[in-house]
Amino acid sequence: MVKRTSFEHDPCPVARALDAFGDGWSLLIIREALLGVRRFSEFQARLGMAKNILASRLRALVEHGILEIVPASDGSAYHAYRLTPKGRGAFPILVALRQWSEEFDAHPDEIATVLVDRDGGRPVRKLELHAEDGRLLAPGDTTLQPRSVRKTKKTGARLSSH
Amino acid sequence: MVKRTSFEHDPCPVARALDAFGDGWSLLIIREALLGVRRFSEFQARLGMAKNILASRLRALVEHGILEIVPASDGSAYHAYRLTPKGRGAFPILVALRQWSEEFDAHPDEIATVLVDRDGGRPVRKLELHAEDGRLLAPGDTTLQPRSVRKTKKTGARLSSH
Repeated sequence: MVKRTSFEHDPCPVARALDAFGDGWSLLIIREALLGVRRFSEFQARLGMAKNILASRLRALVEHGILEIVPASDGSAYHAYRLTPKGRGAFPILVALRQWSEEFDAHPDEIATVLVDRDGGRPVRKLELHAEDGRLLAPGDTTLQPRSVRKTKKTGARLSSH
Repeated sequence: MVKRTSFEHDPCPVARALDAFGDGWSLLIIREALLGVRRFSEFQARLGMAKNILASRLRALVEHGILEIVPASDGSAYHAYRLTPKGRGAFPILVALRQWSEEFDAHPDEIATVLVDRDGGRPVRKLELHAEDGRLLAPGDTTLQPRSVRKTKKTGARLSSH
């Protein structure tokens, strides 16, 4: 996928995040890194990507502060890629993508894995969005407000729930 | 952005979701639809996209069952695009992308909006992932298991938290 438009300075935080991830490959690289992958050759083997595309995506992820370059743990001359806190912070994005597929995919039987609680071994719940006071929120219970005047109540457009 | 690889039948649900969304534009179209946008001209004006790209992305979203075509509400010959339940189900993905930017963006002051609880007018909490029994889970508290043998405890790789 070739990026044609930069959302780097877009006022929308969704667009800014999409700018950082660039394309689907970047989120799959982060998925592998969360699973413990650190070496170029291992990313390449697991993702089946062309080396030049993998190299450019890794470079972009390092530039965005999502991965950092560290010495290889085996003491060799190779280096490895490690997630920064910003990179590990993408975990809820991956969970949201996963759960959307689990709920809406036309062929859920083709999904190979389940995200489970390590202690109980049971599937996790769906991600929950709560109000400050703890109430569970649906999309229609939320609204967007301008950041500068967000203390003014109910001025934003209601998020469509129809 | 030009899609070069299809993840449509990938065993990973993250990859499958990325295949459905295709590129950043599709999630921004869904964002606008959640805000109530329905007409081609309005998507075009708000997103500033080239008409041919917008048309191709809308077509793909309809093919994926994320948008559906409905008659225009004004009774004109134009049609409109409405989110299906599958489309509205992308809301947590958009929230996760937003919150990642809010937490990690180098210039959070450039973010124009805040997602608030419609009743209280207060910013929402961060998305939460809970175990079946209610415990709040961090990435390192979760693991992936093969779907077919998921009753076997703790066989998956621990998600990296370092």
